[in-house]
This record gives sequence, C-alpha cells and structure tokens, in this order.
Amino acid sequence: MDMHELTRELKVKNHSKIVMLVADGLGGLPLEPGGKTELETAKTPNLDELARRGISGGSIPVKPGITPGSGPGHLGLFGYDPLEYRIGRGALEATGIGFELTDRDVAIRGNFCTLDAAGNISDRRAGRIASDESAPLAIKLRAVKIPGIEVFVEPVKEHRFVVVLRGQGLGGDVHDTDPQATGVPPLKPKASNPASQKTADVAAEFIAQAQKLLADQKKANGLTLRGFSAKPALPTFEDVYGLKAAAVAVYPMYKGLARLVGMEIVGKAQSLSEQFDVLEKAWNDYDFFFLHFKYTDSTGEDGNFDSKVKRIEELDALIPRVTALDPTVLIVTGDHSTPSLLKSHSWHPVPTVLVSKVCRTDGCTKFGENEAIHGGLGQFEAKYLMPLALANADRLGKFGA
Amino acid sequence: MDMHELTRELKVKNHSKIVMLVADGLGGLPLEPGGKTELETAKTPNLDELARRGISGGSIPVKPGITPGSGPGHLGLFGYDPLEYRIGRGALEATGIGFELTDRDVAIRGNFCTLDAAGNISDRRAGRIASDESAPLAIKLRAVKIPGIEVFVEPVKEHRFVVVLRGQGLGGDVHDTDPQATGVPPLKPKASNPASQKTADVAAEFIAQAQKLLADQKKANGLTLRGFSAKPALPTFEDVYGLKAAAVAVYPMYKGLARLVGMEIVGKAQSLSEQFDVLEKAWNDYDFFFLHFKYTDSTGEDGNFDSKVKRIEELDALIPRVTALDPTVLIVTGDHSTPSLLKSHSWHPVPTVLVSKVCRTDGCTKFGENEAIHGGLGQFEAKYLMPLALANADRLGKFGA
Repeated sequence: MDMHELTRELKVKNHSKIVMLVADGLGGLPLEPGGKTELETAKTPNLDELARRGISGGSIPVKPGITPGSGPGHLGLFGYDPLEYRIGRGALEATGIGFELTDRDVAIRGNFCTLDAAGNISDRRAGRIASDESAPLAIKLRAVKIPGIEVFVEPVKEHRFVVVLRGQGLGGDVHDTDPQATGVPPLKPKASNPASQKTADVAAEFIAQAQKLLADQKKANGLTLRGFSAKPALPTFEDVYGLKAAAVAVYPMYKGLARLVGMEIVGKAQSLSEQFDVLEKAWNDYDFFFLHFKYTDSTGEDGNFDSKVKRIEELDALIPRVTALDPTVLIVTGDHSTPSLLKSHSWHPVPTVLVSKVCRTDGCTKFGENEAIHGGLGQFEAKYLMPLALANADRLGKFGA
Repeated sequence: MDMHELTRELKVKNHSKIVMLVADGLGGLPLEPGGKTELETAKTPNLDELARRGISGGSIPVKPGITPGSGPGHLGLFGYDPLEYRIGRGALEATGIGFELTDRDVAIRGNFCTLDAAGNISDRRAGRIASDESAPLAIKLRAVKIPGIEVFVEPVKEHRFVVVLRGQGLGGDVHDTDPQATGVPPLKPKASNPASQKTADVAAEFIAQAQKLLADQKKANGLTLRGFSAKPALPTFEDVYGLKAAAVAVYPMYKGLARLVGMEIVGKAQSLSEQFDVLEKAWNDYDFFFLHFKYTDSTGEDGNFDSKVKRIEELDALIPRVTALDPTVLIVTGDHSTPSLLKSHSWHPVPTVLVSKVCRTDGCTKFGENEAIHGGLGQFEAKYLMPLALANADRLGKFGA
C-alpha cells in the first residue's frame, strides 16, 4: 500500500489553506569547510521567525546521495514517489516549454545534426547551431503531414527542438534514433513493444519528410529523435489529497510539472512580488498553493554565492505577505540543493520548515542547513511532506480503529 | 524480504528479558506554541533516569503524517507493518470486547436501526438507543439458529453489537448491508468473492431470523451488518522473534491485540500497580512482557492536560518496580500521540526510550518530545523497535557472513 492509497482513503475536506513555497535549489554549501552556506549567510529575519514558530528538518529529494533533476525534485515535494513516477525525457522537455500534453500524445526530443554525403552523422549537434538559426528550421518542420496524426514541432535552444505526435494508438516506447556516435547514420525508430509500433512507423515518416525539408541546409541537414514518451499518468491532487490546487510560477517547466498533477496555473506573474499578488487574489479559490521561486537555483548554477545570498534575502523580505494571509500550513522548502560551490544540483538535504498551530515546535531559532539537522522533522524523504501538510491542516482521518 | 523474514532467520534464544511499557497516546503538544508538552511538564525523575541510561528517539507509528487507531498503533510497536497487516473492523470490534476469535470465525459489527412500515430505514442508529435497552436485544438475537454454524452475539455500546459466525468455509469478504442512508431498505449481504458466498448466505439467514425476533420493537426493529472480517492472519511472536510473550493489560482491546500476535494474557490486573504485581509474579515464565497503560490516552482524549500530566507522573513513580527486575531491555513508548490540545490521536512522533547495557547512550538527560529529537534513535518507524529490542537483548544473529 503506497502513501497515495492511504491519503486517498483518509482524506477529509475542510476550509484550511496550505501554502508550499519552493525556493528552487535552496540548499547550499559553505565555500570553505566549516563556513556558512548561502542560506546561513543571508539575513533572513522572517524565515528565522518561521523556524521559531514551526518545525524544521532536512528534506531528502529522492534517496540519500541521489541528485534529482527538476522533475523528480518537484514530484517528491508533491508527494509522488519519484522512483515510482518517471517522467519521460520527451514529456519533460515538452512540459518545460509549456506544451500541454494530452493522453493521445507522444513527446520526443529532437536534435538537429549534420549528415555527410553518405548520410552518416558528421556532427551530432549541427555545429552547435545558434538558437536564432535553428528556430526557423524547427518551425519549417511543421510542414510535415502524416494522415491521421497531428504533428507539433517547437523550437528549444540551439540544436534542440520538441516533436509531439498526436493520434490514436500511439505507444510511448520507441528507442532513440541517435546512435551516440559520428560516422554512422541515424538509427531507424524501433518500437520496444507492439503497442508502440505505430509510433515508430509515424516517426520514420516524420524523419523522411523532415530530411527532405532540411536537404538544402549546410549544418542542420539531418535530425535524431530521443526520449520518446507518452504523457505520464499521474493521479491528481484532487484525487489523492482532496485538494483544489493552484500553481503560481513564472517558468514554463514548473507550471508544466504542476499541471501534470492536476494543479491549475494561476496568474501571469513575472516576478516573485507579482506571484504574491496572484496568491492574494486567488486566496479564496483554492485549498493549496504551490509558489515557485527560480533564482535560488539559477544563481547556484552560476556559481554565484553572493547572488544566491541576495536572492534568498529577496525571498525573505516577501515572507510577511504570505504570513499575513494566515495560512493553516505554510511550508518553505526546495526541490533539491544547488550549492554555488558545485554549480549544479546536488543530493544534500534541503532545509525545510513547516509552520502550523499544531506542528510541535522544536526549539529551532534560525532557518538554515545546520539548524535544520536539529529540527523536529529530522531528515525525511520529500514525498512525506504532503502527508505532513495534510495532517497539520486536519485533512487526514485516522488510519484503522 | 520483510523484517519478519529477517528476524525469523536470525533469531537466537537466550535468557534475556525484554519489557515494552506502552503508555497509550503518550506523545503530546504544548497548549501554547513553544510551551511544554504534557510529558515535558510532568515531573518524571525515573523516566529521566532511563533517558540518561538509554537511547531516545521519536517513534513514527505508521508513516509521517498518518494518525493511527489503536490497532495499527500497537501492530507497529509489535513489529508488524501496519500497512501490511490490516485488522478488519469486525475483528477489531470483537477483539475490543475480549472475544477470542478462531480461524473459523467471521466477525461483524452490527447496528440496530429503525425500519418504517415499508421496510425502509428511518433511523440508522435506532434513535441512539441506550445501552441498557439495546443489550437485552443483542442477547435476544442469540436465539438465531443456523444449521452447521455457531452464532455469537455480544452487546457493545448503544446501538452497536458484535456478531461472530463460526463454521467451515466462511470467507471474510462481504459488503456492508448498511446503505448509509435513510428512506431505503438495508442492503442484502453480498460476497465480494466466491469464497465468501457462504458467509453472505449465512448472514442473510441471520438477518431474516433477527428481524422476526425484533419485529415487536419500536426503535430497534431492524439491523445492519458492517465490517465483515475473518481473524487476521498474524504470525506469532514465537514464530518471528522466538519470544515467549506475555501481555499485562487492563482493557480488553489491548489484551485482544496482544492475543492476535500470540502473546499470553497474564493476570487480572485492574490498575497499573496490579500490573506490576503481575509482572513480578510472571517474571520467570516469559521472555517478553507487554505492559499497557491506558490513562495517558484517555486523559488526552478528554482534553485534560493536567490529568495527563498526573497520569504520566503516576507511571513514572512505578518505574523503579520494573528497573528493580533488571530487564535486559526496557522500552518505554506509546502507540501514538494523543495531545490534550487536540483531544484525539495524532500523527506526531512518540517519545521513546530503550535501555540496555549495550544501547549506546546519547547524552539525553530528560524523557520528552523535544529531547527525544536529539536522541540516538532519531526518528524511526515503530515497526523497527522490536528488531532493536532483540538486538539489544543479543537475540539476533549476524546477517550474512
């Protein structure tokens, strides 16, 4: 029996409000061993107040030592076991550019490549073609016509694009056509099960027509297809938690991830301050709010310790706007750590605080990695945060008599 | 491979003694955020001494955020994964009134209801009939005779009673006959699998005869049956741990739960002091002793903070009687928290201490929720307490070479 079977059985509706504020890549590392992390360096009087009023801990995104991408990182926070629910690469790429997948879709990552006269790949990334050169080519591929199939092509960055095939009976399990080598031709699309044979056939036809459309190009005269994937089958927040959920995000990827679990995308905020405007306006219409703050991650990815500190302080300064709404449960956490020292996502537990009137406070007085170790939530897998939120909002009945 | 497969393979017999003292609903909450819980308020010099000599932690009864009933709460402490082993409602109700189920039994919760002239339910609880009115009616139903089947009927409280059907080939999977609505007749008993068809037929015959016996009643002239369940198939303490186990409890529910895992019910204690008398007398006859103290839960359920504090102090005062027996392993824990602030069971981790000569002490000096956070057991699922007890009693061999 998994946690969703449990929460589905035990869920109770009431008028409580739950806010989950996700500072992407929040956790960090000190620049020198024994020093302070970005979060510990930042002046965060409002987050520290939450630590005093709440219960702290370290969220393990997937399992100890495992560094997640944005997909599994957010699925964990949303309470979907990231090892059980896998989002295919194509579906994640489509989600990341805001493409709304349907149950009849197969999403695929496309790469432009350079083919030599013999049809062998001479450059797998089409000479790292610039985005402004490649985008018109991706749009050109929309001319592909396949009977009974809708074809969508969307530019991404540089040599990358997304293809979505929409139609009846398209299974998502087709092998990559990228041979991961030069001097050989692209592979033929090959289904890994009978239910995906039609997809492989349609993909072969797409490639044949696309090659013709690209024949006059110098760099990008060929293509490979990777990460074939159907829309992931995720139960909704309403189904598993009984929550009407809103996502307030700026970037398409996080809107897309939220949409996959049945959240409604609310507002058109372009900054954290505007996200709080949206939150205030939508307050009466939803039970659950997911707010996503991107810049703690991007500054970490840039390796810019000081910028990450500033972004955390920017977040801190806006906390009074959410506490003023008096949510029943307020959570501040991250989908993973992004230490500026590493310039990348990492496996380190993410400092997390949960505030409610019945959370059992733990004596923590600051919000930070080291303080969180001593918090009452201990170290926990991210997937347990939603059941804890529901419990603190009095939205779970008793298990067994 | 589950923990029982492991312990069954590794178990070793010796002369050690393990005592598990369960203070029901032990964990609590402060009345004001940042204040002290019931346990932290209570003067507990003896429990604090155990914290100094032992290793502390927070026991998560089922999973984070999940509030258990008494059944799953105790199964966890006994080392039976409460998500794997489910005790049906009828079986738990029978257990709760001290009815000893056999493998040939199906236990059912009965409700008296009021039927109108058309046979439709006008009151699902028979006008909330008083226990002294309903008990004789339940006993009257013992007159039902079904060939090849033994029928037991036991009064519970108000409109509730328990029916146990005993015979060959009685599956436990029959749908409730309570339509959960008025203005409609009770449903017919319907088997959810072929192995339970006979049970459905027997239940239908029981209902037909019972209706006739109740025909002259004004309030309770009908009945519904719910929570059909066979005796849960739980392996015994002897099987999975190699322990000859005794239960020293006052209330039927806890004796019943202990009996389900193969413990022997010892003594007829009516108070905690008498339970310790029983413990002393039985000391040489068993390897494992489960002592259950009810009043930390009932005072919490009543919302009486001060009474819960007093009950904890009452428990503390008797601790020297168990330490005087010099058990190899002494555990003090609870099956769940029952904060008087919430007047109900809750999901909060339960302060737990395990004392043995080899437990690896952790610097804790008090027994309480906040101190336990910093204990060497950390936060752990209750189901791991029994393997830890066995290890500390040197009753588990090495896994692998």
